[in-house]
Amino acid sequence: MRFSGDPTVFGNLPLDATCEEAVVESLHNRKYNGYCPSVGIKEARQAVADYVSTPTSQVEAEDVILTSGCSHGLEMLISCLADPGQNILLPRPGFSLYKTIAVSLGIRVKFYDLLPERSWEIDLQQLESLIDDSTAAIVVCNPSNPCGSVFSEEHMRDILTTVARHSLPLIADEIYEHFVFSGFKYHSFASLSEDVPILASGGLTKRFLIPGWRMGWIVVNDRHDALSEVRIGLQKLSTRILGPNTLVQGALPRILRDTPDSFYRQTIDYIEENAQEFYRTFRELPGLHPVMPQGAMYMMVGIDMDSYPEFHSDVDFTERLVTEESVFCLPATCFEYPNFFRVVLTVPKEKVTEACQRMRNFCEHHFQPTTVRNGNGCAIQAGIALNGSYSAEELQTVPGK
Amino acid sequence: MRFSGDPTVFGNLPLDATCEEAVVESLHNRKYNGYCPSVGIKEARQAVADYVSTPTSQVEAEDVILTSGCSHGLEMLISCLADPGQNILLPRPGFSLYKTIAVSLGIRVKFYDLLPERSWEIDLQQLESLIDDSTAAIVVCNPSNPCGSVFSEEHMRDILTTVARHSLPLIADEIYEHFVFSGFKYHSFASLSEDVPILASGGLTKRFLIPGWRMGWIVVNDRHDALSEVRIGLQKLSTRILGPNTLVQGALPRILRDTPDSFYRQTIDYIEENAQEFYRTFRELPGLHPVMPQGAMYMMVGIDMDSYPEFHSDVDFTERLVTEESVFCLPATCFEYPNFFRVVLTVPKEKVTEACQRMRNFCEHHFQPTTVRNGNGCAIQAGIALNGSYSAEELQTVPGK
Repeated sequence: MRFSGDPTVFGNLPLDATCEEAVVESLHNRKYNGYCPSVGIKEARQAVADYVSTPTSQVEAEDVILTSGCSHGLEMLISCLADPGQNILLPRPGFSLYKTIAVSLGIRVKFYDLLPERSWEIDLQQLESLIDDSTAAIVVCNPSNPCGSVFSEEHMRDILTTVARHSLPLIADEIYEHFVFSGFKYHSFASLSEDVPILASGGLTKRFLIPGWRMGWIVVNDRHDALSEVRIGLQKLSTRILGPNTLVQGALPRILRDTPDSFYRQTIDYIEENAQEFYRTFRELPGLHPVMPQGAMYMMVGIDMDSYPEFHSDVDFTERLVTEESVFCLPATCFEYPNFFRVVLTVPKEKVTEACQRMRNFCEHHFQPTTVRNGNGCAIQAGIALNGSYSAEELQTVPGK
Repeated sequence: MRFSGDPTVFGNLPLDATCEEAVVESLHNRKYNGYCPSVGIKEARQAVADYVSTPTSQVEAEDVILTSGCSHGLEMLISCLADPGQNILLPRPGFSLYKTIAVSLGIRVKFYDLLPERSWEIDLQQLESLIDDSTAAIVVCNPSNPCGSVFSEEHMRDILTTVARHSLPLIADEIYEHFVFSGFKYHSFASLSEDVPILASGGLTKRFLIPGWRMGWIVVNDRHDALSEVRIGLQKLSTRILGPNTLVQGALPRILRDTPDSFYRQTIDYIEENAQEFYRTFRELPGLHPVMPQGAMYMMVGIDMDSYPEFHSDVDFTERLVTEESVFCLPATCFEYPNFFRVVLTVPKEKVTEACQRMRNFCEHHFQPTTVRNGNGCAIQAGIALNGSYSAEELQTVPGK
């Protein structure tokens, strides 16, 4: 029953003691048992503002709305920015919640492609071709679930330039902010934006490893006051559930201020090591094409379906994998991206090794060399090397048998 | 900025130590940091089932959905039971959130009257006259916010008989369950219902004095399986914010099981004493007509507007009261019930005495005896004696000058 993206399942990645101490302090303080403003307690909002502000993107407490987890923030943002009948642009592959929220509100969705051969950068030309008069907003996720990609500053500036041409706001799902492997650098969209209004959504869930605490936030970055109505709408929407748990709100300033860098570093190093072990293994397995992640908690792995003629799809592949080897990976059809599967990188080391061995068994057992290859495998392999020239469409049109 | 119905504002009604200990235990347990099923952790749902079950209304864990406070539960219930264009019946006077939720979803609202001269019982004949083919559900609140009334078993059976004739479900806002003054008895609607499906909404907010913790629940009482689709709908809606804070969920079994009866009793005794002091004072003040509550945290007080010709309305009256005497009472126009105001009974004793003195000053200063009286005052006075024969409409049509 656990969500796949839950880093707490195995107990190998415990929260930092700072979080626990801060909640006990908040509890014993007895100031945080009552109702609070539905957008959150002032001190907690200020703490988030301090936490996310950068030299080029300064925000204040009033730019922050606390939410019951990041998903609640995303729901508020999508329902506030788009009316029924309008459309929003979503990444493919992407977190399924965006579509679920939008469709339930009568908002149409259009998918722009992320390119595996370019470490899941956005196909900006294709994205731009999707924008029409009914487009209300564009959702971006960086670092990415499910891709584990981290956009470069240059690519982010290109994205912002494209979006600015159409005067659209950007919903930036930054729940994996700062969650980047060694050698990569995290930038918030707000820190690079000059014209584009950025509605960023973040929270304690991933970086602090406490998803159940349901502490998320929306940060409104709006230099040119284009979003004053949106601010009012968000404020109104926040009254529906009257804000997140106050004990955690009371703990938030201390959590954000005092959690030591070493905690973040340990978590990321752990996940990066897992990523490397999985990557090394998958690269050697026949008909599998992993794309090495740069952050977050996931890796996407392409399946050369021609080489696995027993299976009709990624869903079929992953179902048999769990049946035969008890290894559960989410089929990327869940992310609107067939013929891939997503690996979660937060599992304990010994389970990584065990899973690698079992997947080796599985692949070696089911793989069937094809005499006429269609280039798909090579395309993705090229993608891994970051110099591929195949489009995502080409990768996706590999016929399942 | 605090909500008026927040019992924690003054610090005179602290939570019980059991709640704090249970959260610390839940925190140190480290089992409650991850995502949980969006309807809640099994043990916590079972604890609620045990807590609300009675000999005549047994529920199980699967009948319980945990929500982010009672208001979240009400929102889920209203949006799940009624489609846009349908209508729901709401109490007048009543908690404004019901209407806010319904209107935002395109659901029409119709108000049935509560009768002050009958201790705010429902005018069942008028309620029944409002039901039509588009009526989706009826919302009842017992014990009542803002009235402080507690329905008798006999009246509740009459309500259920009326509702059963129309095969409608009842949304029972029971956030003040068990919150009744000495000499009164609390019954849940489910415990008295044989045919009517009851969707009860409750939580820790009021009885446990921790509104900020945002722990509420929905309990589905559905003996004849009329609500199987509603159950599915509620389950789906719960995925939108993925359930309430897990630390509090982990603490819930202990909180519900171990909070001593003495804690509840002390809180209620305290509030009842305040009610009596306010009632004694208001009864003596010229042109004011308090209705003695039987539970919850509020008292409604009628204003003989003819006797206060300076003020155009209850809004005007309460605004001047706060300006001149710094005593803040909510005008009952907020509850769709003009010419009354609501008094919160959770304030510290010394503030009650001080508020009584200031309101005495205010009333004696502004009261103007009318030569031709219209009987309104008498009507409400009769209501207090529980034998009045004036309808709520008559009480409400007192013209403001």
